[in-house]
Amino acid sequence: MQILIFGAAGMVGRKLADRLVQEGQLGGTAISRLILHDVETPFRPDAPFPVDTLTSDFSAPGEAERLVANRPDVIFHLAAIVSGEAEADLEKGYRINLDGTRFLFDAIRLIGDGYCPRLVFTSSIAVFGAPFPEAIGDEFFLTPLTSYGTQKAIGELLLADYSRRGFFDGVGIRLPTICVRPGRPNKAASGFFSSIIREPLNGQEAVLPVPLDVRHSHASPRSAVNFLIHAATLDTAEVGPRRNLTMPSVSVTVAEQIDAMRRVAGERFAARIRQELDPTIIRFVEGWPRRFDARRAESLGFRAEASFDEIIFVYIEDELGGSIPA
Amino acid sequence: MQILIFGAAGMVGRKLADRLVQEGQLGGTAISRLILHDVETPFRPDAPFPVDTLTSDFSAPGEAERLVANRPDVIFHLAAIVSGEAEADLEKGYRINLDGTRFLFDAIRLIGDGYCPRLVFTSSIAVFGAPFPEAIGDEFFLTPLTSYGTQKAIGELLLADYSRRGFFDGVGIRLPTICVRPGRPNKAASGFFSSIIREPLNGQEAVLPVPLDVRHSHASPRSAVNFLIHAATLDTAEVGPRRNLTMPSVSVTVAEQIDAMRRVAGERFAARIRQELDPTIIRFVEGWPRRFDARRAESLGFRAEASFDEIIFVYIEDELGGSIPA
Repeated sequence: MQILIFGAAGMVGRKLADRLVQEGQLGGTAISRLILHDVETPFRPDAPFPVDTLTSDFSAPGEAERLVANRPDVIFHLAAIVSGEAEADLEKGYRINLDGTRFLFDAIRLIGDGYCPRLVFTSSIAVFGAPFPEAIGDEFFLTPLTSYGTQKAIGELLLADYSRRGFFDGVGIRLPTICVRPGRPNKAASGFFSSIIREPLNGQEAVLPVPLDVRHSHASPRSAVNFLIHAATLDTAEVGPRRNLTMPSVSVTVAEQIDAMRRVAGERFAARIRQELDPTIIRFVEGWPRRFDARRAESLGFRAEASFDEIIFVYIEDELGGSIPA
Repeated sequence: MQILIFGAAGMVGRKLADRLVQEGQLGGTAISRLILHDVETPFRPDAPFPVDTLTSDFSAPGEAERLVANRPDVIFHLAAIVSGEAEADLEKGYRINLDGTRFLFDAIRLIGDGYCPRLVFTSSIAVFGAPFPEAIGDEFFLTPLTSYGTQKAIGELLLADYSRRGFFDGVGIRLPTICVRPGRPNKAASGFFSSIIREPLNGQEAVLPVPLDVRHSHASPRSAVNFLIHAATLDTAEVGPRRNLTMPSVSVTVAEQIDAMRRVAGERFAARIRQELDPTIIRFVEGWPRRFDARRAESLGFRAEASFDEIIFVYIEDELGGSIPA
C-alpha cells in the first residue's frame, strides 16, 4: 500500500507519518511506500519501507498530476494556508486552499481507469460561524466568517461531490482545536488554550488572556492522528453521501482546564498561570464555537479523549517522556 | 443607474429585463442603462434608456473583467448550466457554474477603487440533499446531491465571503421550483408541476407521472422577479453576514394543485390531466424537498404567493392575457 501525505511538514502531518512508520500497516495492509509532501521539506522518518520526501507548490500547474501519477492507495490532504494568513492574503489563501485542493481532486479524477483512492481531507470547525446554538449538531449549516473557513467549506462540498461521482472515496474531518500543541508558543489567537498547560509543565509562566468561564472544545494531537487513520480505514458505505464529519472533542471551560492540571500535575503548575485579559483575544473567542454534538462521527467509531485530564496525560506521555517534570 | 444581467436570455432573466424596462427605475433610482448578457443573444426590449445586448462565454479568460469594466451599480447573476447538463458534463458545469461565478466575483474585486456593486445571485434549493426534515429551516446544512447543487452552494459561500470582505454587496436567493413556467413542455423531471396546469389551460392534455400526495414548493415567475428586485434593493445591513436566503414558496400536494385549478378554472380543465405513473420520475421526486420554513426571507420582506390558486391567477394574468380560455 502506497500512502501520500500532503502537508507532511506540519505538526499533525509529521505525527501521522511517525505513526504510519511505527505501525507499518494501515487497516491491516502493509505499507510499501510513504510519500511525504509539503512546501517545506518534510522530516524523513527511519522506516522499514521507502519514504520519499517531496517539496513543491502543489497548486502549481501540472504539479498535482505529477504527485498522484503513481496512484497512491490512500491520500491524506492536510495542506493548507492557515486562517490568519488566508485572511491577510486573499489570493494566496484561495490559490492554495481552494485551487490547490481542486487541482488535486481533478488530478485524481483525470487518472480514471478505475483509480479510486481513499482520500482524507482535514477540514476545520472554521466552517461554522457565529451565532451558534449552545452545541453545534451534525446538521448545522455552513456559515464561515473567514476566508479560510470558506475555503474549507468549499473543499468539503467538492469532496462530497467527487466522492458521489466515484472519482475517489473521500472523508472530510473537521478537526477541533488541537490541544496541547507541542513546541513553542505561536501567535495564533487560540494559542493560549495550549500554552496555559504546556508552559507551566515546562517550568514557565503562561498568560491567560480570557475570563475563566470561556468554553472551548479540544482534542489531543494523538486524537487528530487517530481521526485521520480511522477516516482512512473505515467502511465508507456507512458514511453515505454526507462525507464531512465534525470530530468528537472535549468541551471545557478554561477553569476546568486549570482544574484538570491541578489534578494531574499539582497546584504549583496551575500557579504559573497569570491572567492578563486581552480585549482583542476576548473578542475573537466570542465568535468561536463552544461545544459540538459529534454524534455521527462517534457512531462511526471516531473517538477523542474522555476528559481534559486525559488530554494532559497524552501530552505528558507523548511530549514529556511520560513523567511530570520536577 | 446601470444594471447588468447575466443569464438574460433565460425565462426569469427576460421577465426581469421586461420589468426593469416597464418600471424605469430600481429602488427609486432611474435606470440609465441596461446591459443584457447571455451565451445566446438576449431579447432586446424597447426601452426609454439604452439597452445593450451582449453575447459571449463569461467564463472565457478576461471576459468577466471586460463585462464589469463600466462598473454597473447592480449586477444580477442568473447565468448557469442547469442541473441535468451539469450532471452530464462535469467539466462544463464546473467551468460555468463555479469558475464563471468566481471569475465574475474576482473581476469585481479587482476593480477596487471603492467599487462595491449590489450583486444578486440566484442559487437553488438544489443546495439541499435528502434526507430532509419535513420543513427545511434557515439553518439546515448544505448537502447537495448533484454537481449543480454543489456549484450553487460554492457560489453561495464565495458570495458571503466576498461580501464580508467588502468587494461587493451580495445577496444570494435560493429559488424554489418556478411554477407555472410559460412555454412548451420541457424535459426537466420537475416539468410536470407546471405542465399539469399549463397544458389544460391551453386546451391540451397533460400527463401526471407521480401520485396525488406528492408535495412540493412553488412560486410564480412573477414572484421570482419580485425576489430579484427585492434582493437588489433591500437594506443588507439587516441581512448581516448570512447572505444566502431560502425564498418563500407555496407548499402543496399535487392533489391541492389540481383542486386549485378546479376552483380557479373549473372541472373541465382538471379533467384534462391523465395520471400515468413514471417510476423514474417518482424516484427523483422522492429526493426533493417538500416544504421550506423561509422565516428569514419573510422577515426581510420577500413575498411569494399565498396560495396555489394565486399562482394559477398569476399565470392567467401574465401569460394568457387575464382570461381563462374558453
